[in-house]
Amino acid sequence: MTQPFDHIDLLGFDVFGTVVDWRSGVARACDPFLRTHGVKADPFDFADAWRARYQPAMEAVRSGDRPWTKLDVLNLENLRYVLAQHGVDADAIPAAALAELNRCWQRLDPWPDSVPGLIRLKRRFAIAPVSNGSIAGMLQLARFGGLPWDAILGAEIAHTYKPQPAVYLASCDAAGVQPAQACMVAAHNNDLAAARALGLATIFVRRPTEHGPGQRTDLDAEQDWDVVASSLLEVADALGC
Amino acid sequence: MTQPFDHIDLLGFDVFGTVVDWRSGVARACDPFLRTHGVKADPFDFADAWRARYQPAMEAVRSGDRPWTKLDVLNLENLRYVLAQHGVDADAIPAAALAELNRCWQRLDPWPDSVPGLIRLKRRFAIAPVSNGSIAGMLQLARFGGLPWDAILGAEIAHTYKPQPAVYLASCDAAGVQPAQACMVAAHNNDLAAARALGLATIFVRRPTEHGPGQRTDLDAEQDWDVVASSLLEVADALGC
Repeated sequence: MTQPFDHIDLLGFDVFGTVVDWRSGVARACDPFLRTHGVKADPFDFADAWRARYQPAMEAVRSGDRPWTKLDVLNLENLRYVLAQHGVDADAIPAAALAELNRCWQRLDPWPDSVPGLIRLKRRFAIAPVSNGSIAGMLQLARFGGLPWDAILGAEIAHTYKPQPAVYLASCDAAGVQPAQACMVAAHNNDLAAARALGLATIFVRRPTEHGPGQRTDLDAEQDWDVVASSLLEVADALGC
Repeated sequence: MTQPFDHIDLLGFDVFGTVVDWRSGVARACDPFLRTHGVKADPFDFADAWRARYQPAMEAVRSGDRPWTKLDVLNLENLRYVLAQHGVDADAIPAAALAELNRCWQRLDPWPDSVPGLIRLKRRFAIAPVSNGSIAGMLQLARFGGLPWDAILGAEIAHTYKPQPAVYLASCDAAGVQPAQACMVAAHNNDLAAARALGLATIFVRRPTEHGPGQRTDLDAEQDWDVVASSLLEVADALGC
């Protein structure tokens, strides 16, 4: 740790990948859906294909090509797109079934260290998602997994998506802290780079199976982040919580 | 209970007065401040005078005469106003001392039934402030008193103040529920009237000493609210939590 974190009041967390295991949870929900609707696809491959639409869908909002649209809506559009890629007409599937599958993004298991790590970190710091997920999605995910957030910050507060500076800045402002009093915690180097450029402290958490056994990106820290750890329990150790 | 609450997913709470005892906490903080700065006033009277500026200050935002301004800022302005009423020049007091006193609104004790009641209610419902307080203020208040909110909703989401309809509607939207799936919990009849007009369910909690021993308003339900109770534990009883 290159700084003592004495000046830090808020830990902002990336959630999908950093705190929860989206790939397993999405694949688990896709499995019966794909069989019910006769879609020939491995559920993990389908989850990966669905997730591959995540960045381009958000990019339209980031660039201003599209007005603010919550992630839940983008995810549902992306599901229809991926079904079409698999030769399936989404309009032939009841809208309620699509909406139900889309809610799998609100029912994702935390990594085993996440809840005990957050409980320890919460003793000393305010903790909140600074995620691209919606407030409703983060609320449901917290209730599903027992994530003890103090507040829900992130994209919906700013009406744009990370790594746009506005998301970090609006989250700090809503929490009543300066960027220098906040720290971003993420398993993604680009998220931390954006936060550092604004003056936030940075904690990298290795999540080497976020994208499955063949993951090639974000396997390790690409800058000298203030803390580098392999779990939120290790983060708590490093911060003396 | 006139309805079973089976269709309700979200309980939105008024906080100042309903969940926390603002008058005792504000007076407790004013007491040493007034003595230090030679202000001749009873701390409870001073707290009441400060609180008396609350509605007119918010009204300027509600009416559109003033752009969105967080409650923390209004409270600080109101403090300066009330000091002037007491013949004290606020500019002669260090800004840091004024800011520190202003933070007393983030350090208010929950009523004794609030935390155990919220813990029970949270088992069945999502729970969140739908308060005129800021997100930062609600966050600090939650950390101070151990309020186990699932999210923080309310005025800052809507950029106006209750009882403007936008506050209730934006809070429901952010939580991903329809107004008919939400219930407002408050010790103030006018708050519940505004919520009911939009289709929310309503729970009145008697807080007969919110304004001190001489309280004359909101001593009891003024409409047939869906639940009327004298504590959040009684609310939990009524909802079978």
